[in-house]
Amino acid sequence: MTNQTEVVKTEFLQYVKKMNDYKEAAGLIAWDLRTGAPKKGAEQRSEVLGTLSSEVFAMATSEKMKRMIDELKSDAHWGELNDVTKKSVLECEKKYNKVANVPADEQKNYVILTSNAEVAWEEAKEKRDFESFQPYLEKIVDYNRKYVDWVGYEGNKYNALLDDFEPGLTVEVIDEVFGKLKSELVPFVKAIVESGNDPKTDFLFRHFPKEKQEEFSKTILKEMQYDFDAGRLDTTVHPFCIGLNPGDVRVTTKYDESDFRTAVFGTIHEGGHALYEQNISSSLIGTPLSTGTSMGIHESQSLFWENFVGRHKGFWTRFYDDLKHVSGDQFDDVPLEEYFRAINVAGPSLIRIEADELTYCLHIIVRYELEKALINGELEVKDLPKAWNDKMEEIVGVRPTHNGEGVLQDVHWAGGMFGYFPSYALGYVYAAQLKTAMLKDLPDYDALITEGNLLPVKEWMTKNIHQFGKMKEPLEILSDVTGEGVNPDHLINYLKDKYRRVYQLTTV
Amino acid sequence: MTNQTEVVKTEFLQYVKKMNDYKEAAGLIAWDLRTGAPKKGAEQRSEVLGTLSSEVFAMATSEKMKRMIDELKSDAHWGELNDVTKKSVLECEKKYNKVANVPADEQKNYVILTSNAEVAWEEAKEKRDFESFQPYLEKIVDYNRKYVDWVGYEGNKYNALLDDFEPGLTVEVIDEVFGKLKSELVPFVKAIVESGNDPKTDFLFRHFPKEKQEEFSKTILKEMQYDFDAGRLDTTVHPFCIGLNPGDVRVTTKYDESDFRTAVFGTIHEGGHALYEQNISSSLIGTPLSTGTSMGIHESQSLFWENFVGRHKGFWTRFYDDLKHVSGDQFDDVPLEEYFRAINVAGPSLIRIEADELTYCLHIIVRYELEKALINGELEVKDLPKAWNDKMEEIVGVRPTHNGEGVLQDVHWAGGMFGYFPSYALGYVYAAQLKTAMLKDLPDYDALITEGNLLPVKEWMTKNIHQFGKMKEPLEILSDVTGEGVNPDHLINYLKDKYRRVYQLTTV
Repeated sequence: MTNQTEVVKTEFLQYVKKMNDYKEAAGLIAWDLRTGAPKKGAEQRSEVLGTLSSEVFAMATSEKMKRMIDELKSDAHWGELNDVTKKSVLECEKKYNKVANVPADEQKNYVILTSNAEVAWEEAKEKRDFESFQPYLEKIVDYNRKYVDWVGYEGNKYNALLDDFEPGLTVEVIDEVFGKLKSELVPFVKAIVESGNDPKTDFLFRHFPKEKQEEFSKTILKEMQYDFDAGRLDTTVHPFCIGLNPGDVRVTTKYDESDFRTAVFGTIHEGGHALYEQNISSSLIGTPLSTGTSMGIHESQSLFWENFVGRHKGFWTRFYDDLKHVSGDQFDDVPLEEYFRAINVAGPSLIRIEADELTYCLHIIVRYELEKALINGELEVKDLPKAWNDKMEEIVGVRPTHNGEGVLQDVHWAGGMFGYFPSYALGYVYAAQLKTAMLKDLPDYDALITEGNLLPVKEWMTKNIHQFGKMKEPLEILSDVTGEGVNPDHLINYLKDKYRRVYQLTTV
Repeated sequence: MTNQTEVVKTEFLQYVKKMNDYKEAAGLIAWDLRTGAPKKGAEQRSEVLGTLSSEVFAMATSEKMKRMIDELKSDAHWGELNDVTKKSVLECEKKYNKVANVPADEQKNYVILTSNAEVAWEEAKEKRDFESFQPYLEKIVDYNRKYVDWVGYEGNKYNALLDDFEPGLTVEVIDEVFGKLKSELVPFVKAIVESGNDPKTDFLFRHFPKEKQEEFSKTILKEMQYDFDAGRLDTTVHPFCIGLNPGDVRVTTKYDESDFRTAVFGTIHEGGHALYEQNISSSLIGTPLSTGTSMGIHESQSLFWENFVGRHKGFWTRFYDDLKHVSGDQFDDVPLEEYFRAINVAGPSLIRIEADELTYCLHIIVRYELEKALINGELEVKDLPKAWNDKMEEIVGVRPTHNGEGVLQDVHWAGGMFGYFPSYALGYVYAAQLKTAMLKDLPDYDALITEGNLLPVKEWMTKNIHQFGKMKEPLEILSDVTGEGVNPDHLINYLKDKYRRVYQLTTV
């Protein structure tokens, strides 16, 4: 490497390191605000968050950033850079180019708008009153319609938004994937409903003390190979996982004493996210690449652990006795098979975050179709509540009776996050594809789970996904690991197989 | 205000606000590192701290800072500024001028030196091995001898260091104050030892469960008017209080199940610091003035609550039954008077942080005399252990048998904090002066404490001290509240009065 290249490279790496340090500080503040910061300090703390975010934004869009990118990409230097630096430069360039086309005042107003909209949404949801939220959502949709033009797109306008959450994915691909999910799952869900073979679930709601749930949650996290020396478990209203750096990846959960599933499956889910962040290669620390590559790949990790491990019969063959013991023997009258069927109860429901594994994707498809129509000008905000209810009835098979359990249930649109929802369903699809690929390397997968030997599963994920952070694009990871593009067949087969068993279906 | 003044003023206030925001973020990180951050993330988190501190340092010493100070102090603007802005400018100017004379590379090397020295000190203390720590301390003393020349001083060289912790105080004043304390307390301590009237204390060491201590600690904090909506109580090895902003002032404590005094008096002490930070005027938020004015005034608050409230007979007249109850009735066989004498047991001891109210100042005087001699070149580091032991024997009345319980016991010198120790004793002296002043406004002080009516005490402190933050200098506060300079007589009278009673002395 020439001396001149070394100088520019070092300047760039120190610059992005500083941005990362600010982001890490902001991450800790966000964690603290959600886990126990005293409320009277929150307003000033938000100012600190604002200062840090503005600084990161200013640095990402600065003249200096532009100059460094241009220099490093010039023939004089590019060939001498290692892969991590190259990818870091490209990542910064992508962000720079995207943001550079958004008028600064529009962007700033949008931040204020969505901040106010979240407050308005909370009240509107509480009061089931869409009309009070409508003006905010209209402005948000309006901004997003302009945004896609500013940042540019190929094909469908909605592709510009997808790129923010799941780069490489397009409406063309998603339409096909979701279309297949819909055509296969909608009649299948109908069949299980009509089977009348609902599992008995009353015993799930017995009183299970918080402390005991916490003890069990920690045990399971350890078994998953979550490293408590590089993380911690806390309690929050809305559980989340946050990776501050690979040595500090924090998980939160919540405890419902009359439904232990909230904590147990929630912890496994967030633990799946955490394993991803804990096992990113330390060589990426300080670069923009030291995080999960996309929302969808992240969700593939959490969902894999939640469903392919946590809702696996073998998992409970191994851990049901432990659960019984921790619970104070409250499940002693429930045979394993009955318990297994109960935790896999499925069917149409109204609320996405309470939906089961089988119907979850359908909830996502409802949202995807609606937001795609909004962005393309084929649907107006005022018509959204009816459109929502119609789609729910058509796809999920149940119709909300008011907007609080309908169009107002999610915060995403209030927060301006259009393009985010598809990641959830893509995560399911990816997870099933990963499972198929994993079986080639770990043909005794079922036995491993049944023994509670989860280390090989975690190691497989680290080797194939975790370690790369953002070094690989989502579709690149998928292709490298599975040899395929996005393919919903694996998920469909898995779900049909499993729920035929749970619902004792002989046909379909 | 002219438009031009408004522009410069706004630029300056936004600039110092940003510095404050960074400091607040760094403060939260420091709190988190000491209360439960996972250890594997700590190294990278320290980098974040370093990035934030460097940025604050760079901003405090920047050309821009210098320009803004000069502009605002010019005749064109100064007269139009309000008092808060003026004082903020002066505070920034003082820091700028001080740091500007310190060579940047020397300063940077010193940060690394003290960081390494703290590690070396910890091991040396453990092994009672001064020789391994000596080279570090020699370099640290050497730097401080140069530092006082860089930043300048009037009178004694040590005054330059005092100015960093207790601005306005000088060796000339402290020599007189500490001289008087010594001449009065040394013989008095001897007299209580010779009295043979040691209180019975065995019952203090009965097993007191952590949870119960925590419950009682929280009760007492609430009674002190500590606002839990603007703070929280956590557990740490070395208890502290940190004010992130007036709405978020966190306290930590530790629980020793065989000595509840550690938690109870430790919590009251840190609670005293916290009340100061919680009650600084919100008009100072975002300026450099939104913190305690000096280490000594801060310590006056913690010590006032710990001793003038927490070790007051009336306080236990009110709370002893509560303590008995929480403890599981373990003190039922101990009459109040016996309990009161026990928690005020006093006498010569080796370790500063375990010293009692009566002898604490003597421990400080030992350190003050030694560091003053070191800085003035009248003592060399190699001769320090013997000098320490001699002084301990002369002033406190007990001689260490090894350096672990002698010269190596405190972290301050390893951390480069020369000039800090006097603040502890000054805090005692101030606290007693404040008590005398308070009695004029609250003549029924004893009755208030005995009723557990602590609100008027807290309100008096807020009115006279807390609210001003750094708007007033320490000696300005002292003079405004007491009409005096630093006067040790109040402390001497209080201690003699109290300990005559505790030790049932008839003479002295």
